[in-house]
Amino acid sequence: MTAEIITIGDEILIGQIIDTNSAYISKALNKIGVSVRQITSVQDEREHLLESFAFAKANADIVIITGGLGPTNDDITKHVLCEYTDDSLVENKEVLQHIEHIFKELIKRPMLPGNVSQAMVPSKAEILLNRFGTAPGMWLTKEGTVFVSLPGVPYEMKALIEHEVIPRIADRYDLPFIMHKTLLTYGEGESRIALRLETFETQLPAHIKLAYLPSLGSVRLRLSSKGEEQFVKESMQAQLTKLLTLVEDTFVGYEDEGAYEEVVAEQLVAHSKTIAIAESCTGGELVKRFTQHAGASRYLKGSSVTYATQSKIDILGVKELTIQQHSVVSGEVAMEMAARVRELYGSDIGISTTGNAGPSAGDSHAAVGTVFIGIASETAAVAHKFSMGTNRTRVIGKTVNKCLELLQEEILKN
Amino acid sequence: MTAEIITIGDEILIGQIIDTNSAYISKALNKIGVSVRQITSVQDEREHLLESFAFAKANADIVIITGGLGPTNDDITKHVLCEYTDDSLVENKEVLQHIEHIFKELIKRPMLPGNVSQAMVPSKAEILLNRFGTAPGMWLTKEGTVFVSLPGVPYEMKALIEHEVIPRIADRYDLPFIMHKTLLTYGEGESRIALRLETFETQLPAHIKLAYLPSLGSVRLRLSSKGEEQFVKESMQAQLTKLLTLVEDTFVGYEDEGAYEEVVAEQLVAHSKTIAIAESCTGGELVKRFTQHAGASRYLKGSSVTYATQSKIDILGVKELTIQQHSVVSGEVAMEMAARVRELYGSDIGISTTGNAGPSAGDSHAAVGTVFIGIASETAAVAHKFSMGTNRTRVIGKTVNKCLELLQEEILKN
Repeated sequence: MTAEIITIGDEILIGQIIDTNSAYISKALNKIGVSVRQITSVQDEREHLLESFAFAKANADIVIITGGLGPTNDDITKHVLCEYTDDSLVENKEVLQHIEHIFKELIKRPMLPGNVSQAMVPSKAEILLNRFGTAPGMWLTKEGTVFVSLPGVPYEMKALIEHEVIPRIADRYDLPFIMHKTLLTYGEGESRIALRLETFETQLPAHIKLAYLPSLGSVRLRLSSKGEEQFVKESMQAQLTKLLTLVEDTFVGYEDEGAYEEVVAEQLVAHSKTIAIAESCTGGELVKRFTQHAGASRYLKGSSVTYATQSKIDILGVKELTIQQHSVVSGEVAMEMAARVRELYGSDIGISTTGNAGPSAGDSHAAVGTVFIGIASETAAVAHKFSMGTNRTRVIGKTVNKCLELLQEEILKN
Repeated sequence: MTAEIITIGDEILIGQIIDTNSAYISKALNKIGVSVRQITSVQDEREHLLESFAFAKANADIVIITGGLGPTNDDITKHVLCEYTDDSLVENKEVLQHIEHIFKELIKRPMLPGNVSQAMVPSKAEILLNRFGTAPGMWLTKEGTVFVSLPGVPYEMKALIEHEVIPRIADRYDLPFIMHKTLLTYGEGESRIALRLETFETQLPAHIKLAYLPSLGSVRLRLSSKGEEQFVKESMQAQLTKLLTLVEDTFVGYEDEGAYEEVVAEQLVAHSKTIAIAESCTGGELVKRFTQHAGASRYLKGSSVTYATQSKIDILGVKELTIQQHSVVSGEVAMEMAARVRELYGSDIGISTTGNAGPSAGDSHAAVGTVFIGIASETAAVAHKFSMGTNRTRVIGKTVNKCLELLQEEILKN
């Protein structure tokens, strides 16, 4: 079964927002065996919508549309879908009651005419109740192709996909099994890894595909397959085992177990280790990578962002002399930061960053991109020096990835 | 002049990565007067690429393609573009020398066969030198439509867009002026704002368009126009002034001046105020919002993420009794955190968060979504209580936005 996703909104086409909805929907569809053929972002414009509906219909069994269902005048999706499916709008009592309920219980303000109009839906549409908002989802068909229209607000869309759309598709269609498995590797370039995998690649069975995804010093290797569940699982496992042997020295974990920081977090928990973080040049990005996932309190004692030189002295207790002698961007300072933050928060491991992420020099004369990472345990403190390039975002991203790698080494050492 | 963007890669269609390239390209094109009509994400598959090239050609003057230019077997864009423009690949000496240079000077390892093949380019293509990578950009034409092929790695793509693609388009075409101006409002719902703007909207001249973008408690209002520069600027200014009067009580800044945190950061600098941050439930997200932009050291003294209850006592010096009497999620604790972090880092303003972002209860019995924000200045400490819903990501996002709003109030108060 093939799907297409259409995201509607000028804000995407002028670059004001990044379309994150499509990735969520694609992932959810893949999980139940639906392949996404194409994602299309189009303007809030009648002709363009009609054209994209027709184009999607020619190529897909199901078309998921997001956006353009709000209460304001720039929202036209419902009207155009009605025209496209030769239908007309009728007031839906259930939806109206739901909107009234939201205004009474949650917004606690009187309902407005714009909201009442959100209860008007195409007469032939199957309604998907939006528990988090006033715009309902709609399930329509045109000549055998399903069109599902959802609001563009991410958390409303997500709840509708999870509770209404996915169960209906899984229930109504006979779907194959899709499997992706991604290995995270760190430390080798894309072409060098490709060279190692040359023979492996040519010997891969036709139903398994290998893809390379390079990013900030790491290369992700994805194997994908589709078909009968048992067959796919067994043949994927066989190839994964082969692949793993070929890249074992660079392997850091499976992406399917979560992002890199989630892999490290689970290892911390498994080894009953706690960490504390002192960040300078990464400015909170490292702690945020951990705390964006629930459950960080199991292994994270706390973190300090000591951005200014003085705060490294005042908060962490780094010695003034160390800074004077070695400069604030130095291995010695990184080591003291790591050791002090470990003591302060009473953790097993302390980790620190100090460096110059650019674009200008900051509190030291270190070249842009120079970064020191400190790691302290009960018995030792060490510092590592890196040149991370000149692009601020990349310097920070690469430093955080490197911290995760060093943490992982530290955990597995013991 | 109309453009279409095609992003190539199965990783987008299975939801493994979010396509951020398109937003960057759209924004850059808009700035020089090129409108983006459609963004299409397609598979790494010959037939699909050919079809999408033809479809884009029918609708656009220029087609920007990203992805599929790497050194591995899953990269097929160059070959398909060659087929589509009836061309053949030839070795380009300049590109080969550049690749050799990169391997010698930066990677410091021998070149591999996969990299040599990246110097093979369509014979009729104009080459756009990729200073950050081995895959060159290419500028091709087919029957009057321009096709630009760029690597998918974001920072390589960005440098090529900025230094090679945009200057060429601006130089070779006569372009109109495109202007977007977005007001950030906070505190009123979308339909309520729409009601206020009903008359304004109907009186808007045809060449100016209004859009509503709701997100996490804020509504962004965007005015867009296109045409002769002087005329667009003057008429937009007139409408902006009208619009601002209508939403003045909810107005927090212009998005074009940057993200919300950038607006607040500039206000801090303008008022010579510094801040220190103590985060619990937001886990570093607030400090990260500030430090992701360069120049944070002008106003940010530092931050502590005191995730565990004990670290609030050990690091910040929150009194144990306060926590016992009021619980760790309380206004009293928020106030002490803000006051203590302000003292610790020696800042003008201290700001703190403590709450339960969910999904489970954490160190207190507070309901999921309960958040306290503390603000401390030289003369006073206050706490504000909020119910931020039950979705972890949204609780954190809304809390951070609320912190920014309270900070702004605090800055402007003095």
